[in-house]
Amino acid sequence: MISLDGERRETPVDRLKALVDADLDAVNEEILGRMRSEVELIPELADYLISSGGKRLRPMLTLAAAKLCGFTGRSHIALAAAVEFIHTATLLHDDVVDGSELRRGKQAANLVYGNPASVLVGDFLFSRSFQLMVTSGHMRVLDILSNAAAVIAEGEVLQLATANDTATTEDTYLAVIQAKTAALFAAATQVGAVIAERPDTEEAALESYGRNLGIAFQLVDDALDYSGNQAKLGKSVGDDFREGKITLPIVLAFRRGSADERAFWKRTMEEVEQTDADLKEAMALLEKHGTVEATIERARHFGDIAKDALAIFPESETREVLQDLVEFVVSRGH
Amino acid sequence: MISLDGERRETPVDRLKALVDADLDAVNEEILGRMRSEVELIPELADYLISSGGKRLRPMLTLAAAKLCGFTGRSHIALAAAVEFIHTATLLHDDVVDGSELRRGKQAANLVYGNPASVLVGDFLFSRSFQLMVTSGHMRVLDILSNAAAVIAEGEVLQLATANDTATTEDTYLAVIQAKTAALFAAATQVGAVIAERPDTEEAALESYGRNLGIAFQLVDDALDYSGNQAKLGKSVGDDFREGKITLPIVLAFRRGSADERAFWKRTMEEVEQTDADLKEAMALLEKHGTVEATIERARHFGDIAKDALAIFPESETREVLQDLVEFVVSRGH
Repeated sequence: MISLDGERRETPVDRLKALVDADLDAVNEEILGRMRSEVELIPELADYLISSGGKRLRPMLTLAAAKLCGFTGRSHIALAAAVEFIHTATLLHDDVVDGSELRRGKQAANLVYGNPASVLVGDFLFSRSFQLMVTSGHMRVLDILSNAAAVIAEGEVLQLATANDTATTEDTYLAVIQAKTAALFAAATQVGAVIAERPDTEEAALESYGRNLGIAFQLVDDALDYSGNQAKLGKSVGDDFREGKITLPIVLAFRRGSADERAFWKRTMEEVEQTDADLKEAMALLEKHGTVEATIERARHFGDIAKDALAIFPESETREVLQDLVEFVVSRGH
Repeated sequence: MISLDGERRETPVDRLKALVDADLDAVNEEILGRMRSEVELIPELADYLISSGGKRLRPMLTLAAAKLCGFTGRSHIALAAAVEFIHTATLLHDDVVDGSELRRGKQAANLVYGNPASVLVGDFLFSRSFQLMVTSGHMRVLDILSNAAAVIAEGEVLQLATANDTATTEDTYLAVIQAKTAALFAAATQVGAVIAERPDTEEAALESYGRNLGIAFQLVDDALDYSGNQAKLGKSVGDDFREGKITLPIVLAFRRGSADERAFWKRTMEEVEQTDADLKEAMALLEKHGTVEATIERARHFGDIAKDALAIFPESETREVLQDLVEFVVSRGH
């Protein structure tokens, strides 16, 4: 970000990173250590994905939540690494399921190493995440993170079951993103309060912060698929459209559209019969009904809840950064 | 089995089942309960595989191990269900990786529901297994089972990395089956001693029993692929051959074979260029070098270790059944 007076201004992500910097180094070391295996394909494939510039947003949230709760132990490091491993395993399997071609700006791992390797290394990373959680020695943390993992998988199956269905409601769409994205954000922040042995109210506040931030994050991500540029996203614009993935901009455009427009969506998203001109036509329809903008407005709603959830904590730099992060996530959409 | 005097004789599997019968009912209820989800595809696909006559061998081992150790609590039920879920998740992913067509005598789930559903429902069952373990509230059990899950995944990747490689040594083959099969058997039996809070020697004995039984089991399974009949196995004879899967009968035949024979194995297993007559030729070469028989002899070696491992426990019906089970597993091969 460049401010009006020409100085480079740090983004909230930069400030978050600065806040947890030493811990984040330890997390990265833990991640590298746990990727090791005598089976060379494992560190090779894991490294291809993990070292290729993931933002480490979820583990940073765990570290910041622990910091907000005044945690002084070490178990947040392993838990943050566990959270990143769950995320990475999910990405590997997602790309197999979607037949993705790009991830984080480069060829998706399944295209380079094949689907079988992506499935199995995903399983390995998933197992590693559980080993990491167990090292925390904290039974409630295990409960929270294993529940999150099950909810994520359930959400992925729900997404698959509703794929290419233009009849998908906004409620079902929300149920999918709550499960596949927000559940991990929620667990990532909640465990910070749990290991710090803070009262239930603070645990609930951090759970709510993470969950609502996660919903906002996914809403904006889905909006960006129709408005961002490929380099910024590290993926192709219109990917969701080409797959016939029903995200909120489409759900709303279908509902707000004419009979002819609905026929267009049915052909392109349900039958996935698309010509080269269709993405342009789709973008025009989204623009006409303002559904990308509406999606970002929905994100703002959840973002506001996230910010208010943190208000019970006393003022601190950590609280401020976490609240500013919400604004940053929502305004990515513009 | 029909004895000489015409009476129907129970197999050790039947006796094992009778021994843990009430507990096994509870495990089956737990399994059905944990398969439930509002996302209908999950119970549907899980039920397709789980209800289709899996032997429940691994969960029965957990129940029997707990019984052998005099365990009187309830947590073995959830752990036995967790073990079965890990196994089922692995089967689902295996069939995707191998492109299998048959499993337990019917069409493999990936053919009926597609690879994406199999991957994601596998992930769901895997997560459920961790939730089940967490309910045990026993940190060492979590450690043992999460390590087993990681070792299994590592073994699957190793198997993939050495696939279609006729240079695979017997040692590498053993490393693969120790990881992908024996690790879960070992964990399944070891946790019985852990929850019963028995001394280390008994825990080690049950770990060794499970591990060596698991190795023997997989060796015989790999031998049967070239000798059993399809109905008995619930899979096609020669499946491994058609996939170019390098199992011990092939490892040994390659080593014991002539230059011409090695060229045959390279063409059929490495290039996977096969004609209809090749399976017959392969079976003839295995017969010539006695490698199916040799594989079963190797299984007998590990089976003997398993039986001796249990000798430190006082005589009991449970011990006898577990020891007879080993003999039964090995003699399946004949």
